[in-house]
Amino acid sequence: MKQLKINVNRVKKHFEELAKINSGRKGYTRCAYSKEEKEAKHWLVDQMNRLDIPVKLDSVQNVISRMGPAKGPAIAFGSHLDTVIEGGLYDGALGVIAGLEMMEILKEQNIQLPVPIELICFTGEEANPLGGTFGSRAMAGLIDYTPEYEKKLNDLGFNWEDILQAKREKSDFLSFLELHIEQGQVLEAHEQSIGIVTSIAGMIRFQVRVIGKASHSGTTPMNMRNDALLKSAGLIQAVHDIAKEYGETIVATVGEFSIFPNMANVVPGEATLLIEVRGSKREQMKEVEEKINEWIHRNLEDTEITPIVEKVPNVMSKSIQDEIEHACIDLGMSYQHMLSGANHDTNSMTHLTETGMIFVPSENGISHHPDEFTSWKEIEDGINVMLQTVYRLSNQYASLPLNQ
Amino acid sequence: MKQLKINVNRVKKHFEELAKINSGRKGYTRCAYSKEEKEAKHWLVDQMNRLDIPVKLDSVQNVISRMGPAKGPAIAFGSHLDTVIEGGLYDGALGVIAGLEMMEILKEQNIQLPVPIELICFTGEEANPLGGTFGSRAMAGLIDYTPEYEKKLNDLGFNWEDILQAKREKSDFLSFLELHIEQGQVLEAHEQSIGIVTSIAGMIRFQVRVIGKASHSGTTPMNMRNDALLKSAGLIQAVHDIAKEYGETIVATVGEFSIFPNMANVVPGEATLLIEVRGSKREQMKEVEEKINEWIHRNLEDTEITPIVEKVPNVMSKSIQDEIEHACIDLGMSYQHMLSGANHDTNSMTHLTETGMIFVPSENGISHHPDEFTSWKEIEDGINVMLQTVYRLSNQYASLPLNQ
Repeated sequence: MKQLKINVNRVKKHFEELAKINSGRKGYTRCAYSKEEKEAKHWLVDQMNRLDIPVKLDSVQNVISRMGPAKGPAIAFGSHLDTVIEGGLYDGALGVIAGLEMMEILKEQNIQLPVPIELICFTGEEANPLGGTFGSRAMAGLIDYTPEYEKKLNDLGFNWEDILQAKREKSDFLSFLELHIEQGQVLEAHEQSIGIVTSIAGMIRFQVRVIGKASHSGTTPMNMRNDALLKSAGLIQAVHDIAKEYGETIVATVGEFSIFPNMANVVPGEATLLIEVRGSKREQMKEVEEKINEWIHRNLEDTEITPIVEKVPNVMSKSIQDEIEHACIDLGMSYQHMLSGANHDTNSMTHLTETGMIFVPSENGISHHPDEFTSWKEIEDGINVMLQTVYRLSNQYASLPLNQ
Repeated sequence: MKQLKINVNRVKKHFEELAKINSGRKGYTRCAYSKEEKEAKHWLVDQMNRLDIPVKLDSVQNVISRMGPAKGPAIAFGSHLDTVIEGGLYDGALGVIAGLEMMEILKEQNIQLPVPIELICFTGEEANPLGGTFGSRAMAGLIDYTPEYEKKLNDLGFNWEDILQAKREKSDFLSFLELHIEQGQVLEAHEQSIGIVTSIAGMIRFQVRVIGKASHSGTTPMNMRNDALLKSAGLIQAVHDIAKEYGETIVATVGEFSIFPNMANVVPGEATLLIEVRGSKREQMKEVEEKINEWIHRNLEDTEITPIVEKVPNVMSKSIQDEIEHACIDLGMSYQHMLSGANHDTNSMTHLTETGMIFVPSENGISHHPDEFTSWKEIEDGINVMLQTVYRLSNQYASLPLNQ
């Protein structure tokens, strides 16, 4: 089994088939709940039917395919087939096609793992009206009822009963693994083949409204101005400087920014910044948030700060990280441990089971863009590490007294 | 004549009448070429008819009313009745109502000035599809023909022939005066009643596109970012610092600013700034522009700089400034000389004749806004200074050998 390698030509062919399901002018567009996402999931169902591996869609249209015993907890793995508008080829699709290839190679080689394995293709992982990671949050029972949310569900052809039915139990799983492109430049910069994710970053977002005074750009001398854009410039610099002190464990970003009235001949009277802090430790994230707030109170008179969202960081299983590391060593692949700054379906699955994520490099860190690129060699290496990790885990679980 | 004072109650009544011609929910809306602007000009025509003072509309709908001899060069004065959307009561209207009141008080008191006087209410002074100060630029022959411009004229019910017909000659004028609210806080801060404008600031506008690299806010460590917003923050600060060195003779503003893609989870990849420099001396403005460009080249790698517009400063007549100063002294009013940072119809009129501008204070410097405010006392003082200046000038011109 150590010698078993996946078939990268088949992987390539599957990417090519999937690439055709696309409504975008540039790149790949299979938005959550769209005709294209549905078609892509049917393509996956067809593949499983071809391989004669049981496959079903759950109540929120997650595709679930299972090999091995029909009962008992499974090693699950997967990702999603939806994309952003004009996104890339690999984000999400890699984790699904990797799962398909692992099942196909096991089937082809007639290898029976000692525990069941499951490929899950989640619905609507990218930002969408029902919230990102929709399918995995439904499966993990993380969606709260509100009448407004039910209305949105109805608009997209779901109802609240579907959410309840999609929920699964902890006893269904031994673990969950996801292979994904890094969507950053860390592996590329450090020339590593594999990233072993230690945790998925938490996130704090808050909005800051900086209030100045709009005045005529021609008639207001420099020393009589209360320029909200100038005040914001200091804050933008401060957000960067504060986060930078923490090295690679914290990132802070002003990603949304606008001024009012935004006219050539008016000194800006208001500015609105959306500040986002991400990190692997909640206390560190709160510390950064606090430092930014302190800077604001020390330096800016009129501001309104509004919390938007807070998500705690989720730690990946240490023992799964170890198995991934061993798989890398077995296969002679370079690797490093790293934080996942982006959110993934794995984040939801931490509420159900032990999780692990494997990253492969993204050229120039580009993602959510037609130029997203990972080489076939990197993809081959990544899927082989996944396969080896699943194999190692299956043997480990099989040796446990209660099989979980 | 020195004792002749205007009737501020009548002025107030005229403002009240004009205020009713308004399509805005807040403040006053009589946009250029709108039904409301036309109605306001007809209101002025009606006033002149009531006073039995000859009045006409020229080919671009400037209202021109004349007292005294029908032939020969005139002392002209005026402003405009159009407003920005939801603007204030005083911007433009003050100069027109002041002219109406001056004519009315002269008529009432049966005073004949030794030279003709003209009130001009210009069409479309505020920013509009045909360009701001449209009516005065047409009168001064400053509009250049392009097929695109002709198309825009046609869309607004004018044709190129109207532009040619609106042009007047230098020999039509002895001088042009405009009473206007300051639209800044200089007079208020210095507790002066009257501003004697020395020149109308020139303006240089250029666009700077700051190019960074869009990347995922979660997956891009701080030290691997090329954040266009962060780079822009330095530039915004630099623009302010460079202009501030020049005291009150230069202002520089980033009034329009946007980032791309402007998403919470994306490090900004691009930013676009519109930088505006205004000042009374062209060489100083160019020096500031050059310093900003140097800062950009020294500090930012990828930028595109695009010139947008350059207008030279226009100097007000020294002898008219002296007459305004004498009028202030005669009337016991505090005054100061100052730059007009804003553009006005007077700017166009400098191409036809000697010009002068009189400013009255704007509370908190607010303009182009429903809160725009100048007290009735300040308005009364301003119009009395105008009247006295016109009187002084008329006597001066009458004493010249060629009556101009």
